[in-house]
Formats: sequence, structure tokens, C-alpha cells
Amino acid sequence: MQKNTTPCYYGDYLQLDKVLTAQAPESARYGVEAHDETLFIIVHQVYELWFKQILHELKAVMAVFAGAEVKDEQLTGIVHKLKRIISIQQLLNQQIAVLETMTPQDFMAFRDYLVPASGFQSIQFKMLEIGLGLKSEYRIDFDKNSFYSRLNQPDREFLQALEQEPSLFERVEKWLERMPFLQFNDFSFWQMYQQATNTMLARDKAIVEQIEQIAEHERDMQLNEIGRTYEKFAALLDESKYQALQQQGTFRLSQKAMLSALFINLYQEEPMFNLPFQLLTCLTEVDEQLTIWRYKHAMMVQRMLGSKIGTGGSSGHDYLKRTTEKNRIFTDLFSMATFLLPKSALPALPSAIKRQLGFYFSPQA
Amino acid sequence: MQKNTTPCYYGDYLQLDKVLTAQAPESARYGVEAHDETLFIIVHQVYELWFKQILHELKAVMAVFAGAEVKDEQLTGIVHKLKRIISIQQLLNQQIAVLETMTPQDFMAFRDYLVPASGFQSIQFKMLEIGLGLKSEYRIDFDKNSFYSRLNQPDREFLQALEQEPSLFERVEKWLERMPFLQFNDFSFWQMYQQATNTMLARDKAIVEQIEQIAEHERDMQLNEIGRTYEKFAALLDESKYQALQQQGTFRLSQKAMLSALFINLYQEEPMFNLPFQLLTCLTEVDEQLTIWRYKHAMMVQRMLGSKIGTGGSSGHDYLKRTTEKNRIFTDLFSMATFLLPKSALPALPSAIKRQLGFYFSPQA
Amino acid sequence: MQKNTTPCYYGDYLQLDKVLTAQAPESARYGVEAHDETLFIIVHQVYELWFKQILHELKAVMAVFAGAEVKDEQLTGIVHKLKRIISIQQLLNQQIAVLETMTPQDFMAFRDYLVPASGFQSIQFKMLEIGLGLKSEYRIDFDKNSFYSRLNQPDREFLQALEQEPSLFERVEKWLERMPFLQFNDFSFWQMYQQATNTMLARDKAIVEQIEQIAEHERDMQLNEIGRTYEKFAALLDESKYQALQQQGTFRLSQKAMLSALFINLYQEEPMFNLPFQLLTCLTEVDEQLTIWRYKHAMMVQRMLGSKIGTGGSSGHDYLKRTTEKNRIFTDLFSMATFLLPKSALPALPSAIKRQLGFYFSPQA
Amino acid sequence: MQKNTTPCYYGDYLQLDKVLTAQAPESARYGVEAHDETLFIIVHQVYELWFKQILHELKAVMAVFAGAEVKDEQLTGIVHKLKRIISIQQLLNQQIAVLETMTPQDFMAFRDYLVPASGFQSIQFKMLEIGLGLKSEYRIDFDKNSFYSRLNQPDREFLQALEQEPSLFERVEKWLERMPFLQFNDFSFWQMYQQATNTMLARDKAIVEQIEQIAEHERDMQLNEIGRTYEKFAALLDESKYQALQQQGTFRLSQKAMLSALFINLYQEEPMFNLPFQLLTCLTEVDEQLTIWRYKHAMMVQRMLGSKIGTGGSSGHDYLKRTTEKNRIFTDLFSMATFLLPKSALPALPSAIKRQLGFYFSPQA
Repeated sequence: MQKNTTPCYYGDYLQLDKVLTAQAPESARYGVEAHDETLFIIVHQVYELWFKQILHELKAVMAVFAGAEVKDEQLTGIVHKLKRIISIQQLLNQQIAVLETMTPQDFMAFRDYLVPASGFQSIQFKMLEIGLGLKSEYRIDFDKNSFYSRLNQPDREFLQALEQEPSLFERVEKWLERMPFLQFNDFSFWQMYQQATNTMLARDKAIVEQIEQIAEHERDMQLNEIGRTYEKFAALLDESKYQALQQQGTFRLSQKAMLSALFINLYQEEPMFNLPFQLLTCLTEVDEQLTIWRYKHAMMVQRMLGSKIGTGGSSGHDYLKRTTEKNRIFTDLFSMATFLLPKSALPALPSAIKRQLGFYFSPQA
Repeated sequence: MQKNTTPCYYGDYLQLDKVLTAQAPESARYGVEAHDETLFIIVHQVYELWFKQILHELKAVMAVFAGAEVKDEQLTGIVHKLKRIISIQQLLNQQIAVLETMTPQDFMAFRDYLVPASGFQSIQFKMLEIGLGLKSEYRIDFDKNSFYSRLNQPDREFLQALEQEPSLFERVEKWLERMPFLQFNDFSFWQMYQQATNTMLARDKAIVEQIEQIAEHERDMQLNEIGRTYEKFAALLDESKYQALQQQGTFRLSQKAMLSALFINLYQEEPMFNLPFQLLTCLTEVDEQLTIWRYKHAMMVQRMLGSKIGTGGSSGHDYLKRTTEKNRIFTDLFSMATFLLPKSALPALPSAIKRQLGFYFSPQA
Repeated sequence: MQKNTTPCYYGDYLQLDKVLTAQAPESARYGVEAHDETLFIIVHQVYELWFKQILHELKAVMAVFAGAEVKDEQLTGIVHKLKRIISIQQLLNQQIAVLETMTPQDFMAFRDYLVPASGFQSIQFKMLEIGLGLKSEYRIDFDKNSFYSRLNQPDREFLQALEQEPSLFERVEKWLERMPFLQFNDFSFWQMYQQATNTMLARDKAIVEQIEQIAEHERDMQLNEIGRTYEKFAALLDESKYQALQQQGTFRLSQKAMLSALFINLYQEEPMFNLPFQLLTCLTEVDEQLTIWRYKHAMMVQRMLGSKIGTGGSSGHDYLKRTTEKNRIFTDLFSMATFLLPKSALPALPSAIKRQLGFYFSPQA
Repeated sequence: MQKNTTPCYYGDYLQLDKVLTAQAPESARYGVEAHDETLFIIVHQVYELWFKQILHELKAVMAVFAGAEVKDEQLTGIVHKLKRIISIQQLLNQQIAVLETMTPQDFMAFRDYLVPASGFQSIQFKMLEIGLGLKSEYRIDFDKNSFYSRLNQPDREFLQALEQEPSLFERVEKWLERMPFLQFNDFSFWQMYQQATNTMLARDKAIVEQIEQIAEHERDMQLNEIGRTYEKFAALLDESKYQALQQQGTFRLSQKAMLSALFINLYQEEPMFNLPFQLLTCLTEVDEQLTIWRYKHAMMVQRMLGSKIGTGGSSGHDYLKRTTEKNRIFTDLFSMATFLLPKSALPALPSAIKRQLGFYFSPQA
């Protein structure tokens, strides 16, 4: 690394001549400048800068997964980058408080000038959603039908092309499917697992049947739910049943990927699973943070507009509320607890396998 | 204030002998102590301590509102106490991250011992909800029917009695109704307001009709919504129409209270409205923080249990999700933006009235 | 407000073509691009955008104070803007966690390319410090002597000119001095105040003399401190003594301004003081947030560089640590507690004066 | 795990009869109850509950380190528990905002009743400090001399005994010393490291000598600093020199432990170092969070008391400020950056060694 030849100047390095001259309130063009429009612009520019950073990390993560094989030392980097994304998302969630310092009345002083612009038109945000795995087929109808109509042609075509690329969800799914931990010649792990889970579900059933302080219709509701959980367990190891539930949207991950993810969760303390488990946990948190952001954002929009329509011509608040339910990505990981067992009920790993999950070098050796 | 006679000792003052000996993990009674059960206990004890503090503030606020008249200097204290409640709520929301350091597997090591105990049985939390104004009739069905069945008799009777007491919602409603700003002899404020809002709605309608990049069914959806908003505006000043919408749950506040709240929002910068406006804003934030807590809590429960049933014998996660939608209190204030006007469109207050909203002492005088 | 003629497009409105193309890692110019340099650039660009927003609010606040008289309704706006600044500062403090996701080793991959650029060269940050009132004479030596040498001529001249402008500190000082609450014809407030404070200090002295569990040298240390506090109280009402302490840097505010600030603090619950008290509290918090930011920033730099020198050629960490002590602005307000009295010991205001501090309109009337 | 026989009730499980009846304001005993004293009590009780939780985690971590050997799977648990401690510390830092909702005037309404009680008397906090490794010899004088004098005899003796126990710092030091990575037969790592670092320091020196915009005295200051850094590097591999610097307090860790920690930092991406590196990072953050808490706490005390003395009879604010500088524990890890190299300058590990740092099982095999 040779020394920098030309001295570097802070303002030039950050290109502040561009960044700090990019705030042009519309209100100033049409009448009196609205004091708060600058806040509105800067808040959104900051969002876009963070989105660019998240996409920068996401791209690096995808590049590794695109490779034929993910080396252990590469996992360290992937987890590190995902943790950075999460830390940025936490900041984005806190940032909403800053925009909430704008009163609805102050917003009204310039909102009409923005029509029909709207956050729906943030290309980077859509790149992020699509990149993570939220492609059209998984979106709520509004997104499916009307979203693209709001974009100009180049933006629309760019995103539609992107929908053809493999997403992080798909990359991780393939990586999980490649995991070699599913069949261990003679070790009948999955049978033992099934016995243990049956016991567990039977107890849950007993609990609901025994509880006294509970209305009948409610008891039934819960017994039905346990019934559904039985089905899920049964489907885990039955290819056709699994695919049936996958069709209904109960599972999104493929069966093989789901089983790998489950195994990693069950034996998360084995050294070799430390990084894979961190990776799966990070993906869950990325999804959770995104959903919390949608929710807080929906609340903020309701405070700002009440039941008025958004500048993008949609009922912003209701739209956003609906996305918090439906626009999720790693729900299989998020609900993994359904299939877990307490450590005490875990089948012990045969020492040969346990050895395989440890480090080559062992201090005691 | 005379000097303390007996010297005060930190540990005695805080009664740590009681507080720090109140953690008895059930798992230790039935088998091996589960390391994380202590976290589970302490997290909930901390919640209860904060609930006690919030109730302490709430009680002081209610006492003032119970008086025949709320003096201006008392408003300072009320707003101060509500801001403290909000600051505690923000902490409660952040606290969820601590419980999330418990993995589902670690939770499984002791959850069965807790059956059928559950957070539903937190008397203080229910006192808080009822005190704010979330009485049975406003709760989701589960709460209505099954909630009380989970309590022992003394707790049940205590809360049922509390439901008969006036809530903060009702106290504030009465206070708003007493506000003397609704009829100013000759100043025809509300007519002017209506004209201004009609113009505004007409423009919104025009926007939706003009927007090109939008599916027809969506345009209709939004025109209907504007229609509903028209109705709301029409109802604002028509007693019978208002009561009709109130029946349907569109409004919860009485018409008089709603109009006062609206007037305060519209002229929030008048000195005399500074504290009342802060008060209304605080109530909105108390409600918002409570809802965000419910939402994050629901997410956490899903991560912890998946689709398993909660120790209270309910589908914790779905139940909690539903409460975030329905169990709201100050929604009228939260959606106030529907009825606001930009400052530029506000009818100017006659100087006589403006004078009334200022301070007695004026430097310029 | 007439309808927007040309339709507004999100990306154009935010000028994303400029904002999102302003990241050019130096490492890419000299060799392999360092992955984390993009984070480094974006973090600093976001800081600059927030600084611009803070300066936008500060400018609006200053404009009001520059006027001959600050109307009560204007105070609402000033407090609102200061609260927004604080909310942005809280975000800036949390943002440090994002940069901390960069390991020292990752920083080393590009730091040499940045020499001699450094945060010292952030013009906006210096505008903020100077605007608030942190002019050269109040800075630590490093800032005094070497800071300007790091800037190019236009930047240097711009800031040196700015140092001649009145700062927020000076504006607020003048505003406090204009306050008409210092002499009330016959009401001998300050004598009563002095008696009350003497009693209080005497008790403090007694406490220190009585405490048993305390080393002698420590008891002396504290008695000296109480002695100094006595002096301060004595100086409060003695112009020449006050100026002497002001020379020594014990006080920065003028005596008149200090007394007004104290009076507002003592009677903060009087309606007329609600906004002035909020204003003073906000100024304290702006100062506190700035200091916490400096402190966290210093810690982060130590983690990043250890005892290496910063790219600006300074021992970043030590420098920053020192600024947290010395570069404060509203310390008089921050230490106001020294001069407060418990409500119970407050001289009651004569009803005539109390009336003056209330609203013109009184419901009971 | 057999089913719970007696049904568990929320309030009994949490022993709320004890926890929620432990708030007895002193002000109520001596006169009118001060509204805010309840907040003061509850805030401190919550602190103590969290301290108990942190000590619970710390104890479990220490137990593992006390063992003859730390298994890889045990490291997962240690890191997990340290991360939980950090997450609790972050909450404690945010909690200060709640206490800051108490005005100095409100505090004055009861502070005299608390004399001479003070936070110095929190046994659990001292247990935490001592447990982490902050024993008397490392404390600021005030703590050394006067701290114990404030405790009753049983508390004093308990803590003095604790000072004899091994601390986390000592446990980790021993664990690092046991690391087998320091001498690799023929691989002359440390020579290569020394060459690389000499080059790096030479460049730093060159930078300082070349920079133009810098005052001479400042240039000298920095050259001296680089000189000191040279010494540190020289000492790293020279036992006697190292011990000399250790005497002066430049290093606290033993030379062997320091070198292990450095090696782990340099090759943090090797799978086998993933958990050890996380562990060292966690210790740094525990220390950082503790220091930030001390700092914010010091600010809060200044706002609350100004230059008045604390109830414990000390100048709370100054005392606390000093502790943020001196009462640190893992400073060697915190300043590790001093000794790092950019990846590009790192000696490549011989494949034999690299193999040793990987997993036994390799997918490609």
C-alpha cells in the first residue's frame, strides 16, 4: 500500500459539494418555502444512503454464496456483514422518531407539491426487498399489481430484470440443501427426533385439555392449532406432504433446506454450527427489523395523514399495515421454535459425528 | 425539612433483602435449575416495577383531572408526568431485546413448569389498560371472554370494580368538553372551517381522479375512502350524524370533546394551547408506545414459541398480534390529522380572541 | 397553494443522481477497493446531512432571537426546533454503533489513503459549534492554535468571519437579560432567596462535619468545595464579585442573564415560564448530547486506532477526550442545580406577580 | 421433565407480594411524601435486579473458566452470556433517561432524608466491578481509601474477601496464556510481525514529519507519541522490557496473554478463532458500556446536584468523572489496534498451521 500522492481533503473526499447541494424544496418553487420540507428531504436522503450501504453489504454476501462452495472463513465475513446490516436497520427504526418531530400541520404545508411522488418509488428499497427474496409472487396484491405502474420505464425494467436474479433467500436455501448433515449412515437421527416431538406434542395436547380456566370454543381453537402442528411435524419427513404444505404457503424453504436449518438449530452449540447458526439468526433479525420498520412507519403515516390519502395516491397507512403481515421472507426460520426440542430431549450425537463437528486441532490432544 | 435522625443505609432503603431474594426458579424445584429462568423472572419483575411507577404517575394525573377545574400550573405537572410515562415505555420497548437473548431452546428448559401462569395474569398491566380507558367493551373478544377466567377471585373482583371507575380517557374527555373555546359569539369559526375542508377534500378527490399510474379498482377503493372522509367531516358538526358514526366506532370521543381537541390542534401555537397540545400529543404517544410494545412482544413470542401454545394456554403470538390492531385508546387523537388544515388555510382568529389566548403580562405592553 | 404542474418523481425530488453517486473510495484508486471504505464514506455523509439539518433549525431559531422581541407564540416554534435538534443528536449518538461494526483491521486497509483528511475539516460541524457559542476563546488549545491550520483558505476565512457573528449563547443571554422579572418594586425576592440558601448551605456543611465514615483529607476537600459554593452564592447578587468569578470562568452567562435563568428555574411551573423553562432545558440537553457524542466518539477512535495517530495527524483519542471536558457551552444552565431551592423553601410569589405570570383568560373568571 | 403438579400463578411465581411492597419513601416518614421519591427508589431497585442478572451470568462464565480446560462448545455459551450482559448494560445506559425526567428541584424535596446513603453502598455493583477485575489496587484513590469506610462491617468483610478471589480478568489471562499458538516450531511468525510493524511505524513517522499544516510543538508531541509506540512494540517480544512497562501500567495483561490476544486479533477470520475473537470483543464492550454508563451517570449527577455534595458526602460528579478515566479493566484489549496490521501486511500462515485452525470435517474433503 503506497502513500497517497495528492493530499486528501475532507470535503472533497466526501463530495459534499454534491451531497449538501441536493436539497431543493418544492415549496420554494411554488410559493413560500416550508421550513420542514428540508427535514423531509434530508430524512429520505439519509434513508437512501443507508439503503446503498445495505445493498453494498448484501452484494458482497451474495457473491460468496454464488461460489461453488462457502469456506468456513468466508462465513465469518458473511455473518459480520449481516450484523452490520442489522445495526443499520436498528438505526433506521430509531430515525423514524426524527421525522415524527414534524407535525401533520407542518407536513400539510408542502405535501401537495410532492404528488404523485412517494416512497413506493424508492428503487433501492425495492432492490433490497427483491434481493432478500421478496419477489412479486410473495407480495401483497397492491405491490403485485400497482407497484410497477408507479415507476418510469427504465426503473420498472431494471427491477423486473432483478426479479429474475437469484435472491439471498434462494442462495441460502441452496447452501442449506448442500449441507452434508442430513443422512448419517447408521445414525437414525430423524426417527429419534420424531419420537421426541410426538411426546412433546402429546403433552401440549394434555395441557390444553386439562386447563380449567378456559372457554370451550377457545379450547377447541387451540386443539385445532395443535392438530395443525402435528401435520407440520408429519410433513417434515414426508416429501409429498411437505410439498403440499409448501403449496399452501405453510413452508417456503425446501424440505432439505428446512431439515438442515432445523439440525443446525438443534445442535447450535457444536463448534462447526456456531457460524451457520449465527447466520440463520441474522437472517431472522434482518426480517424482524424490516417488519418493525414497516410497522413503525405505518403508525407514523397514520399520525401524519390520518385517513387522508398518501401523495402516491394510496391509503398509505392501511397499505403499510398490510405489508407487515404478508411481506415477510425468512418466516420458516422465524417460526423454527415450532420444531425445536429442549436440550434434555435431544438425541445425543454419536461420538464419531460429534468429532466431525469439532475442530481439527484439539488442545487436549 | 428537618435532618434525618437515623442514618439511611442504601440496602435498607431499597429493601434489597426483599427485592433480591424474590427469584425462585421453578425448574430448581422439579429438577436441574435452568440457567435462563432467572432472566425470565427478573425481566418480568422489572416490568412489574415499571408498571408500578407508571401507575404511580397515572394516579397523580387522574387526581388532578378529578378536581372541579384543572389550573394552568397543574397542566405543567400533568404533561411532565405523562412524558415520564412515555420515557419508561420507551425503555420497556428496548427491554424486549434483553429477553430475546434467550433462545427458544433455552426457554423450553423450563416453560412447562410455568403452566398455566402467563402474562395475562399481570394485574398491574390490566390496571394500566383499564386506567387509560381500555375497558372490556373495547377489548378483543379473547380479552372480553376469557381474560377474567384466568384470574383468581380476588384479582378478578378487584379489576371488575376498577372497570367502574372513570378512566383517563373519560377524564380527558370531560376536560375537553368543559373547554370554553367552542362558541365565540359572532366569530363563525366552524363555517369557515367547513368551507376550507371542503376545498381540501375536493382537491384530494381531483388528485385521485387525475393520477394515471393506478389500477381502476384501486382508484375506486380510494374514492370510496375519500367518500368516507367526507362523511366524517359532515358528522363533525352534526350531532346526530356524529352519534351514528360513534355507534359504529368511527369516533370514540364525544362530539364536543372532539371539536375542542381539533381546535387545540389547529391553533397549537397560541400560548394558551401550548400545554393542552402537549397533553394531547403525550396521550397519543402513550398509546403509540403501548402498541409498539404489543407488536414487538408478539414478534418475540413467535420467535420463542413458533406456533406452539403459550403457557397461558393461548396462541400467544396470534392473540398479541390482534391486540395491536384493536386494543387502542386515543385513536381519535391519533388520527386527528384527518381533520387538520394547513396553517395557510386556517381562519385567522379575531384579535379579541387571540388576546384571550395570550398571557396576561405582555412585555410590549 | 396551487396544484403541482409537473408530476414529481421520488428519485428526482431527492436528487439521488447526485447523492448516490458521491461515494468514491480512495482505496479503489490506489489498489484493491477496501470493502469497508464505502461504510466510512456513507457514515460521514450521513453525519453531514444531519449537520445541515441541525444548522437549518439553528438558523431559524437565531432569526427569531435576532428580532427586537420574542413573542410567546414564537417560543413554541423555538422549543419545537430545539427538540428536533436533540432528537437528531440522539440519532447521531446511536449511529456510532454502526461505524463500530468496522474492525480496526478493516480500517487499516484504507486509512493511509485518507491522510491528512480528518473530521477536523468538517466545516458544518465547526459552524454548529461556533453557532452554538463555542468560539475560539472557549476551545481547548489544540482547537485554538492548530485547528484553522488544517483548513484551506476559503474555509478558514469563512469560519473566522462566522466567529464575529452573535452565537445562540449570546442571543439567549441577551434575551434573558431583557426579562422583566428581576426587580419587583417592593417584593424583596432576592433577600428572601439569600436567607433560604444560607440555611441550605449551613445544613450541607453540617452534614459533612457530622459524617463519620470519611477520611479527614476528604472531609477537608468537601468543606473547601462548600466554601467555593458559598462564594458563588455571594457573587450571584454582587456585581463586582460576580465579574471576578466570570473572569475565572466560574460563570459564563452575565449576572443579569444568570438571575433570570435562575428565576425561571425556581418558578418553572408558572404558566408563563413553561416555554422559557423548556427552552433552557433544551439548551442543556443540546450541550449534553454533544458532549456524550464527543465521549463515545473518543472511545470509538481509541478502539479503531489504539495509540496510533489519526489521519489528521493528531492523537485523535486524547484530543477528543479533552474536548469532552472543556468544549462545553451552556454549563451555567447545566449546573443550575447549585442555586436551586426545594419548592417548600421557595418564597411565595405575591398574588399580583403570580397573576402577571398567568394567562389573560381564566376559566374560573 | 414431568408436568408441574401445583398450578403456577403469575403473581406468586414472581413473588410480587415482596417486590411490589418494597417501596417506602423516606419523605413520607418525615413529612409530606415527595411524589418523585418512588421513581428514585424504583429506578435503583431495577438497577439492582439487573445487577443480580449480570452477576448470575458472570458466575456461570467464571465457573467454566475455573475448569482445567475450556471446551470449544463451552465458548459458545460464554460468548452468549457475555452478549446478554452487554445487552443489559445497553438498557442500563438508556435507563438514565428515565431518572433524568426528575428535575433537580423535585430531587431536593427528599434528598436530605437519604443522607448518608449513596450508590457507593451498592454491594452488587462492587461485586460486579471486583468480579470483572477492578480490584482496589486499580481503583482511583477515593475508592481505595474511603469506599470501604462507607459500608457496614458485614458488607465490608464480604467484599474484602471477594477481592481475594480470581476475577474474570485473571481467568481470561490464564486462559490466553494456555493458548498453544505462540511458538510454531519453524514458523518464525514474530520476526515477520516485527518487520511488518517497523515498516508501519516508519510510515507513521514519515507522515507526521511531512504534514505541513501543523504547529511545531504539536509535531513534537506526536513524534514523542510514536516514540512511545516504538517502545511498546519493542517490549511486546522482550520479557524484561515488557515487565518494566507493566510496572508503569502501560500493560495490564501478562506478556504471554497479550501475545495470544494479539494473534487471535490478527487471524480473527480463521474458524478456530471465531469464538475466541468474539469473546475478546465482548470483554471490550462490557468495559466500554460500563464506562459510558459511568460517564452518563456523572453528567446526570451534575444536572441533579450542580456543585452540591452528594448524599454520600462526596462530590458525586467529579468523583464519577474521574472513574471514567481510571476504573477500566480490559484496556489492553481496548487498545489492541495499536499492534494490529492490515490484512495485506499479515504474514501468511503455513498451510500446516492453517489446517490446524480449521474444522476437522471439511465439505471439500
